[in-house]
Amino acid sequence: MTTPTPEQWMARALTLARRGRYTTHPNPRVGCVLVKAQRRVGEGFHARAGEPHAEILALREAGEAARGATAYVTLEPCAHQGRTGPCARALVDAGVARVVAAMQDPNPRVAGQGFAILREAGIEVACGVLEAEARALNPGFILRMSEGRPHVRLKMAMSLDGRTAMRSGESQWITGPQARSAVQRLRAQSSAVMTGVESIIFDNSRLTVRADQLGLEDAETIAERQPLRVVVDSRLRLPEAAACLREPGRTLVATCSEDAERRERLEAVGAEVLVLPAGEGGRVDLAALLRHLAAAEEVNEVLLETGATLAGAMLDAELVDELQLFMAPTLLGGEARPLFQLPGLERMAQQRPLEILDIRAIGKDWRITARPKAAS
Amino acid sequence: MTTPTPEQWMARALTLARRGRYTTHPNPRVGCVLVKAQRRVGEGFHARAGEPHAEILALREAGEAARGATAYVTLEPCAHQGRTGPCARALVDAGVARVVAAMQDPNPRVAGQGFAILREAGIEVACGVLEAEARALNPGFILRMSEGRPHVRLKMAMSLDGRTAMRSGESQWITGPQARSAVQRLRAQSSAVMTGVESIIFDNSRLTVRADQLGLEDAETIAERQPLRVVVDSRLRLPEAAACLREPGRTLVATCSEDAERRERLEAVGAEVLVLPAGEGGRVDLAALLRHLAAAEEVNEVLLETGATLAGAMLDAELVDELQLFMAPTLLGGEARPLFQLPGLERMAQQRPLEILDIRAIGKDWRITARPKAAS
Repeated sequence: MTTPTPEQWMARALTLARRGRYTTHPNPRVGCVLVKAQRRVGEGFHARAGEPHAEILALREAGEAARGATAYVTLEPCAHQGRTGPCARALVDAGVARVVAAMQDPNPRVAGQGFAILREAGIEVACGVLEAEARALNPGFILRMSEGRPHVRLKMAMSLDGRTAMRSGESQWITGPQARSAVQRLRAQSSAVMTGVESIIFDNSRLTVRADQLGLEDAETIAERQPLRVVVDSRLRLPEAAACLREPGRTLVATCSEDAERRERLEAVGAEVLVLPAGEGGRVDLAALLRHLAAAEEVNEVLLETGATLAGAMLDAELVDELQLFMAPTLLGGEARPLFQLPGLERMAQQRPLEILDIRAIGKDWRITARPKAAS
Repeated sequence: MTTPTPEQWMARALTLARRGRYTTHPNPRVGCVLVKAQRRVGEGFHARAGEPHAEILALREAGEAARGATAYVTLEPCAHQGRTGPCARALVDAGVARVVAAMQDPNPRVAGQGFAILREAGIEVACGVLEAEARALNPGFILRMSEGRPHVRLKMAMSLDGRTAMRSGESQWITGPQARSAVQRLRAQSSAVMTGVESIIFDNSRLTVRADQLGLEDAETIAERQPLRVVVDSRLRLPEAAACLREPGRTLVATCSEDAERRERLEAVGAEVLVLPAGEGGRVDLAALLRHLAAAEEVNEVLLETGATLAGAMLDAELVDELQLFMAPTLLGGEARPLFQLPGLERMAQQRPLEILDIRAIGKDWRITARPKAAS
């Protein structure tokens, strides 16, 4: 038998961390494996805010075997006094000999403090094993900690000719059940689902995670946390009868309207209204909204599910980090609704270049993962 | 060593046949392998009209060894007296013992006649080995022989949001060099390249095969045959200064205009003008044009390179057999030109379903192969 490499142990820790994909909000997904004499003596992952961190669970499983072990952990152990105490201290107390982390704490104000506690106690520390994979696991948490904004994932369903709906707005069932299930999983892993008020007015979207559509074993547990629903509604046009206001979970209406009467009516049916300064064109300042979501709501990942106007405005403001396009094998024609409105894009030199990271079949549809590239 | 299967010998014959992909027009691509005592004793492929058929070349290579051999051939050997005589007769004369064909002759009037000659001479005949692969090699020849029309391959270059050009018409360099080279190869394998007069007016497309862009070893030889250029020009608006009229090869202008003066002027600069009955909306009857191309020009495969209007009309008339979409990783926005104009498509129930056969990366772009599906 060959000896497992540090990368292999870290890959195991990452696999564990991924089990928390749908439930750790607002915390990061973290996994930990304790290894002694080339054998795994304990492992754990963080499942849910308020429950123990990955390191604590791994140490509990290992018990005395933790002494002299190496801890593989997907994120720098914390140094702060949380519900379960600083993990760095717990690793010291358990007598761990060595800690291998995939990445530093992304918060620049605390980065390295966990490692410092370990080193001061004479523990050998290494960092950077499978770092890219670890970063991909928590894109939103990292951005929130490092830049004070969430990771924005724009999801759209389109025909092969780049259309989202008929001119009339009719749009049901462009993509098939597997694609819709994938969208449900994207919602479930997000801290917030964001849309424009037009999407609510036309489609009456509920924006909820539906357990029966997740296609996951622990769907019921996952659907207990409904992502924060965020409606961009510059003029407070959200209908009081909107379906999303009657669903479990919170609906935050972001506006720059000062219409107190509309506001009170919406609050009376359960909406939370957030008044923000107006940005360009008298519309909600989208960057300010995202900063608010990160700071006040601890939002890591936003799933943006909306129409061409808000999608285009978010792209134009360079606030989209990732595109998830579900492409159905059909043509809707030149009169149908476009994917993006990008006003002012008149010349090829102004085109918005993307990097396509992946295209794969999903049922009868295709899923395209891309990200905006800096214009050349 | 294991004994090669009939499928393996036929696969070799298909590989040979593919070498004629760019040069056999108007003939089909055909390959032949002669096998005796599990060894290949001769092989050949048809390279060019007027040159020997695959069977004749294989027999020449085999010489006396052909006696008692099995011939694997991708198409039923011909029974007609061509420049090299009927191949079925040549196989009989050479003493071949057995003939395995991938498919029958697609011309219903002569199908089976080659086999009949062989059987009458006591040769064992089998048919249907790798038939789907053999049919895919000659989609146009098969349609022309069986239905009197060519195979139409619609090529378009688009952004990820389904746009082909800016509103102004500006469109250069959406896709990268590898994609453009693939389009050159599509042209080279086609009997004809077809476009609408608007594409000529706006882009002054030459529609030629350029040896230096083919990315093939024998590019110079291939580019000696320029596909017939077909311009759909209902009102004879083609400019006499159009670049395509100054290129090697023929340009056929399909019209329903009876303007004799315009016609004479175009003929004076080298165009051939074909007057067809008007179809819907006073425009060229596209089905009649395709029938003409098959019957009078022996056109097997048409590459349709055009804008949204003609592309949409061809789709609506159910005259497109295959779509080749080159998708660039960029966004052009909702004001840019659409992929297809499909007038009258107002409801989701009228959408045009496709079957996506393949999506693959080509340089920085993606190539999508699809075909229209019968609407459900």
